[in-house]
Amino acid sequence: MTTFKYPEVLQETIKQLSSEESYKAVCHTHFFEHPMPSSDKLAEIVNLAREIIFPGYFGDSPVRKESIHYYLGVNTERLFELLNLQVLAGLCFQCETNNAEKLSEHKTAAFELTKKFISSLPELRRVLTTDVQAAFLGDPAAKSNGEVIFCYPAIRAISSYRFAHTLFKLGIPIIPRMISEMAHSETGIDINPEAQIDESFTIDHGTGVVIGATSIIGKNVKIFQGVTLGAKSFPIDEDGNPIKGIPRHPIVEDDVVIYSQASILGRVVIGKGSVIGGNVWVTNNVAPGSKLVQFKPRDVLFVEGGGI
Amino acid sequence: MTTFKYPEVLQETIKQLSSEESYKAVCHTHFFEHPMPSSDKLAEIVNLAREIIFPGYFGDSPVRKESIHYYLGVNTERLFELLNLQVLAGLCFQCETNNAEKLSEHKTAAFELTKKFISSLPELRRVLTTDVQAAFLGDPAAKSNGEVIFCYPAIRAISSYRFAHTLFKLGIPIIPRMISEMAHSETGIDINPEAQIDESFTIDHGTGVVIGATSIIGKNVKIFQGVTLGAKSFPIDEDGNPIKGIPRHPIVEDDVVIYSQASILGRVVIGKGSVIGGNVWVTNNVAPGSKLVQFKPRDVLFVEGGGI
Amino acid sequence: MTTFKYPEVLQETIKQLSSEESYKAVCHTHFFEHPMPSSDKLAEIVNLAREIIFPGYFGDSPVRKESIHYYLGVNTERLFELLNLQVLAGLCFQCETNNAEKLSEHKTAAFELTKKFISSLPELRRVLTTDVQAAFLGDPAAKSNGEVIFCYPAIRAISSYRFAHTLFKLGIPIIPRMISEMAHSETGIDINPEAQIDESFTIDHGTGVVIGATSIIGKNVKIFQGVTLGAKSFPIDEDGNPIKGIPRHPIVEDDVVIYSQASILGRVVIGKGSVIGGNVWVTNNVAPGSKLVQFKPRDVLFVEGGGI
Amino acid sequence: MTTFKYPEVLQETIKQLSSEESYKAVCHTHFFEHPMPSSDKLAEIVNLAREIIFPGYFGDSPVRKESIHYYLGVNTERLFELLNLQVLAGLCFQCETNNAEKLSEHKTAAFELTKKFISSLPELRRVLTTDVQAAFLGDPAAKSNGEVIFCYPAIRAISSYRFAHTLFKLGIPIIPRMISEMAHSETGIDINPEAQIDESFTIDHGTGVVIGATSIIGKNVKIFQGVTLGAKSFPIDEDGNPIKGIPRHPIVEDDVVIYSQASILGRVVIGKGSVIGGNVWVTNNVAPGSKLVQFKPRDVLFVEGGGI
Amino acid sequence: MTTFKYPEVLQETIKQLSSEESYKAVCHTHFFEHPMPSSDKLAEIVNLAREIIFPGYFGDSPVRKESIHYYLGVNTERLFELLNLQVLAGLCFQCETNNAEKLSEHKTAAFELTKKFISSLPELRRVLTTDVQAAFLGDPAAKSNGEVIFCYPAIRAISSYRFAHTLFKLGIPIIPRMISEMAHSETGIDINPEAQIDESFTIDHGTGVVIGATSIIGKNVKIFQGVTLGAKSFPIDEDGNPIKGIPRHPIVEDDVVIYSQASILGRVVIGKGSVIGGNVWVTNNVAPGSKLVQFKPRDVLFVEGGGI
Amino acid sequence: MTTFKYPEVLQETIKQLSSEESYKAVCHTHFFEHPMPSSDKLAEIVNLAREIIFPGYFGDSPVRKESIHYYLGVNTERLFELLNLQVLAGLCFQCETNNAEKLSEHKTAAFELTKKFISSLPELRRVLTTDVQAAFLGDPAAKSNGEVIFCYPAIRAISSYRFAHTLFKLGIPIIPRMISEMAHSETGIDINPEAQIDESFTIDHGTGVVIGATSIIGKNVKIFQGVTLGAKSFPIDEDGNPIKGIPRHPIVEDDVVIYSQASILGRVVIGKGSVIGGNVWVTNNVAPGSKLVQFKPRDVLFVEGGGI
Repeated sequence: MTTFKYPEVLQETIKQLSSEESYKAVCHTHFFEHPMPSSDKLAEIVNLAREIIFPGYFGDSPVRKESIHYYLGVNTERLFELLNLQVLAGLCFQCETNNAEKLSEHKTAAFELTKKFISSLPELRRVLTTDVQAAFLGDPAAKSNGEVIFCYPAIRAISSYRFAHTLFKLGIPIIPRMISEMAHSETGIDINPEAQIDESFTIDHGTGVVIGATSIIGKNVKIFQGVTLGAKSFPIDEDGNPIKGIPRHPIVEDDVVIYSQASILGRVVIGKGSVIGGNVWVTNNVAPGSKLVQFKPRDVLFVEGGGI
Repeated sequence: MTTFKYPEVLQETIKQLSSEESYKAVCHTHFFEHPMPSSDKLAEIVNLAREIIFPGYFGDSPVRKESIHYYLGVNTERLFELLNLQVLAGLCFQCETNNAEKLSEHKTAAFELTKKFISSLPELRRVLTTDVQAAFLGDPAAKSNGEVIFCYPAIRAISSYRFAHTLFKLGIPIIPRMISEMAHSETGIDINPEAQIDESFTIDHGTGVVIGATSIIGKNVKIFQGVTLGAKSFPIDEDGNPIKGIPRHPIVEDDVVIYSQASILGRVVIGKGSVIGGNVWVTNNVAPGSKLVQFKPRDVLFVEGGGI
Repeated sequence: MTTFKYPEVLQETIKQLSSEESYKAVCHTHFFEHPMPSSDKLAEIVNLAREIIFPGYFGDSPVRKESIHYYLGVNTERLFELLNLQVLAGLCFQCETNNAEKLSEHKTAAFELTKKFISSLPELRRVLTTDVQAAFLGDPAAKSNGEVIFCYPAIRAISSYRFAHTLFKLGIPIIPRMISEMAHSETGIDINPEAQIDESFTIDHGTGVVIGATSIIGKNVKIFQGVTLGAKSFPIDEDGNPIKGIPRHPIVEDDVVIYSQASILGRVVIGKGSVIGGNVWVTNNVAPGSKLVQFKPRDVLFVEGGGI
Repeated sequence: MTTFKYPEVLQETIKQLSSEESYKAVCHTHFFEHPMPSSDKLAEIVNLAREIIFPGYFGDSPVRKESIHYYLGVNTERLFELLNLQVLAGLCFQCETNNAEKLSEHKTAAFELTKKFISSLPELRRVLTTDVQAAFLGDPAAKSNGEVIFCYPAIRAISSYRFAHTLFKLGIPIIPRMISEMAHSETGIDINPEAQIDESFTIDHGTGVVIGATSIIGKNVKIFQGVTLGAKSFPIDEDGNPIKGIPRHPIVEDDVVIYSQASILGRVVIGKGSVIGGNVWVTNNVAPGSKLVQFKPRDVLFVEGGGI
Repeated sequence: MTTFKYPEVLQETIKQLSSEESYKAVCHTHFFEHPMPSSDKLAEIVNLAREIIFPGYFGDSPVRKESIHYYLGVNTERLFELLNLQVLAGLCFQCETNNAEKLSEHKTAAFELTKKFISSLPELRRVLTTDVQAAFLGDPAAKSNGEVIFCYPAIRAISSYRFAHTLFKLGIPIIPRMISEMAHSETGIDINPEAQIDESFTIDHGTGVVIGATSIIGKNVKIFQGVTLGAKSFPIDEDGNPIKGIPRHPIVEDDVVIYSQASILGRVVIGKGSVIGGNVWVTNNVAPGSKLVQFKPRDVLFVEGGGI
Repeated sequence: MTTFKYPEVLQETIKQLSSEESYKAVCHTHFFEHPMPSSDKLAEIVNLAREIIFPGYFGDSPVRKESIHYYLGVNTERLFELLNLQVLAGLCFQCETNNAEKLSEHKTAAFELTKKFISSLPELRRVLTTDVQAAFLGDPAAKSNGEVIFCYPAIRAISSYRFAHTLFKLGIPIIPRMISEMAHSETGIDINPEAQIDESFTIDHGTGVVIGATSIIGKNVKIFQGVTLGAKSFPIDEDGNPIKGIPRHPIVEDDVVIYSQASILGRVVIGKGSVIGGNVWVTNNVAPGSKLVQFKPRDVLFVEGGGI
């Protein structure tokens, strides 16, 4: 029977972990008055924005015609305050100077940027309404708009993307990526906030979908689980590192459908109205109205007996 | 240095968002006394059902032979009350009349349906026990039944599916889908609650699995990550919308194994005892006892040098 | 209008569920003083370890050079206490005797094992720093080390893997698997804690990645979403069950890149510096410096008109 | 070293505690659909009412002129819903029949009573404003109205009393008493909700104040800590039990001040403008404009040396 | 405009606070495996005991005849486990040796003591039922047993006292005092857990009541707010400190009533059936059947005009 | 059977409540960037300060000699940050201009004031240690310093007072009063933060104690429950309002004991070493070394028979 003593290894380990040499590459230093980006607050922000866009589905407030404007008023103002702080946190996260003038500039910028995001909410509702309708019409299993809004991971991922993309266009650092990774974690759908996606967009099932940063997607496009809109290769600079910022993902025109597990790689154009079959691998342009399917389901060998 | 004033854009945006025109397609109106389906409550329900089925693994109650019946009593009664309210919420969600007689009918129906779900718990435990044993026997990495129940996403997804399917068969709206989407989010496994899956079913790894609404799966079937049991195409009605409710997903007979990333599409039959290899794409019937593998690992080009 | 009575079905169902016959295969019995493994505590442990490794990114403590050692001291000591209990819970979970001497042995063992984990934290920080740098250099969309640490699911999954692997090597039951399944659920990346992965490892996007238990991965390897390092088949014992513990997953040497959806199956070696293209299916050894791509994007049929 | 076994005393004790004989006098039986009064919900209700009456002091919503009506709208509607359920719970608590018609009557009654409470909020604000001003003017230590509203236990106790009294006048059972006991616990001030207290009422310090059920207090009255407005004796019925409902507490007319620890007992009248000194014991009527002090501070013995 | 730097005063202050000299008189050192007494856990324990004694009033479990034994089973077992740990914490708190044998002894003792407390629950229910009835009969404002159990601070304080006294009699350190101080904070009623109080005891209003450690109270006693059963003086030892453990508080015999603010000091006996009037100061024995009132309400001076 | 419609009274009431006329006297308007004083944060601050002063008793951190400085470091820094914001909130609460320069001044002031509070922590620990020792020595029921620190409401009230008084001396508005009212609510002890109390101060039982704003208390003073150090009367200005800020409470010199329910009123001096008996009413100076007791316990009338 043992009595446990305070373990010396604790003291020694803490000493090693406290060596600046050891942490300097992976440590984020805080300045007084600089708020930190917060996943919890961003989750609240996304939920609140969703509650504003789709009244009555999210949040615990009952919605009735007589009082809906009160809830929209309170929620929108609360969204403003929460987002204002996270936008500021994003600006501070990127900034490496601890300087009162700079902080004051960031505050002014955050306030203006937040106002712009808020004023885009009505347009975000309009576009997301087209996405909901596309999901309902495109899925034989969908029973109502309500079910789509309430349950479908696609709507969760696409609404987060549209919020994140709006913030990205305003030039806000880190925050858009955090929002899109939160949706990625929940849905398995990974849409880079820099991608450009037009209205009436829908995704079925969704797990494993990847839409890269420079992708451009037209109106009324539908994609299925496991679809990748990716880069084929990365131009490499003289140090052997990928050059950042070059268009390297597909352009998908209006009215295209892409079935499950298909990979479309590189700056190729999938022409209007094309249908890309499941598991297909595309690295060239596809003419408008094309239909691509995997050549032979028959290139599968039937083997009797034997292990695989 | 700025003083921040109340932003006028808030007032203007709230006004736009409050216009009925703007929200009417995406708004859910509440009636007094109509409860709202709640993800939080459904998560509690699923956890409670799991705690009842697998005593001692979930929940913070210690389980001992002398007292297990107290916990089963309290948990089952609590499950009854929580589920009763969510079933009612599901019936109200679908119902568009604010009418006391209708509400009274819903309450009676919810009470009867909940009793039916509760009385199916012993059978659910029996079937889930076969699933646990299948997962243990089928995975060389599994160390005990306990590890399977405690850690495996397959058991999480399959138990949620079996709860949701039981609720679906009782005719309860929206709730089954909410439960299956919650499991989808946690595990990346998307099993439509309408699918029919017999006992001793298991899934390995699981991320990216999709099992469509009209799928029928026999006894002792095992599938791997990324497998799709999907629809090949949707018959379209005269308005160009998919016709809902038609059988369009595969029938997988007893003792079939389907390896990772395989796609089986359309109302095809995979015969008893067949093995479907990884990445295989199947759109036709497969005779019992077949073994399908991708034809040529050699249809891959070895390229020396050059970028991809 | 009905008055609801206490439903008799409750009593009957509870009685059936309380039959020992019914639950004995799926029930975990607790002994006094044996703690239970707890997902909540493990989540706290993983977050705390991450907060120690990457100071200033996680947790709500501000980090400043003057005071960082206080936080490291408190967090490391707290990690010690939390982990000590979960290690003990793991040892008890596996142990089937309710015996005071055995429990005393487990306590001594847990204390020693926890000390070993704690003393490996500085090395874990060193290795994870190489992973962060690999992720930053390898992704044209990455804007800073900070963004990688803060947002990338790869870092989340790889750090959980490295913690779990360290615990696995110490011989601790169940806990490593619980940690890896928690990361799997959050990121869609399923790395078995038994796998051996060297430094500078990175994963892009990640959803659907599976790395099996006996995989060995060298330095500076990069993989993309949907990649499987799996087993081709399982040797089966005379009872028809898979034989456990045999090397059955790939060896990936240094400097290899594996693109999305590729499947590498069985105990094959992917030679140093090779590039495996997307969607490729590999079941044989690959020589160092090879580049494999899918043979023909042209084995896709262009069909004009017609449904798919 | 011992192994702890499941203690048999548990089984035996549970059996005894489960005997109906043992619990029938102190057990409250629930009927389906009958909500239970909830201290947590009542605390939320009281806080919400206080937030509505005194905008900007309680709750975490910022208050600005441009948006105050949104907050009042949301909070008032939320108060309505929460209170409606607690009023119903109060009616059910008192009711001993499990009967659908009765429950339906209670629901209708609760809805009507809640509407009446809500419509009294503007008058409650008006009266409580007079109480705040009385507290500010009457206390040389008070620095602003804001400090009084934010910190003073008197305002906390008096506002709870005014809410509870309004509910009492509407005939709602149990709920008013629960609210007043919650304020009693927080402040040490025990005001029976049946007491009648006119406007501009204030209490200084407050701990130990007791104001009995049939007390009547005029305008502009101030009392200090430890004051009792109590009953002198209770008429007893033929069984030796106190007869309930008889006026037995004092009437305090306008502009009276009562200093600390004074006790005024029985149905006596303290005339307009009187001042009752500290520690005074009053059991007779006091004429208007009287000033009562304890006769002799000199009836205290100065003793040098010796213990007390 | 200032940039805030890390304040040096922090470092200096932390250094001073860390000097052992500075904290040694007011610091509690922890040993591994010694649990700490926890107010939160004790609050849970008291609530659980109250829920067991008075089924259906506290806790969120509905109580119905068909299922009450499940709740009693679960709650009693949970009470056992929570209390076992706090009893152990109490024994450790008092113990100053860090020694495995000692800890093992404490564990055995805690287990046995907890069993004794549990087995006294039926008797505690019986006695508390007499207290509830006494409160109901003795208060003209009380409307039902239910209201008394649910709302009256007396029942809250007396039940906490009875739990604490039972634990005190078992010789458990610190825990009884913590429980009684928690009730003191909630109700303003301060009953030392060492006092002996027989059945059918009630307190009206209660704020300011003090019942000292060596008080003995008979059956059917009723006291009002502000009553003190205190010590008159403390025998002092040669160092000038009070001698601990001497009987120094009153004995109150059966059927006594003590009105508000009365003080009874020293080891005096208040004879059976006596009535002690409000504000009375008693330091001598009082014969059975006596009625004491303050001599002259007339020793109050009526002063017209002038300040007090 | 009724269907409940949205009640019109809600709209009407909200409209009335939103009228500026109605709320302007009791509304607190917020400016952007002005934090609001928060009871929750102040509770956290007081707990943290208590945890720093008395290491190992409060908070859930184990304290060991080897690591105590880490906890003191983290807690002191956290206290700094929390308090800094609440001090700023206090300054803003009092300030009625929405002006960036003013806010900047407040921030600088808050930072400096917080530093001063932090640097007084070692002295606060020294003084509170004398209070703990006084409580232990003065109470025959006290079993250890530990019990006093852990359970006694006096230590809770006195430590809150000493924190609040330190903040008051620094000129911080509203915050000190909020802290003292929180302690008042928990303990029934109401010590105005402006009072001056020297070391080795203790209070027994405590409920009902009131210590007014201009009281001055020397070293080694002990008081009992219900004691008032109050004002006798307030000089009134020409408008009939009390003049604020005049010394109006007692001076109690060193080594005085004041027994329960005694009232000492007005700017009188209780000389060094005096003992004031219970229930005594003092409005004149008392010479050093005096012992005052109530003259006649015999001025109580024994009445046989009859009601009281």
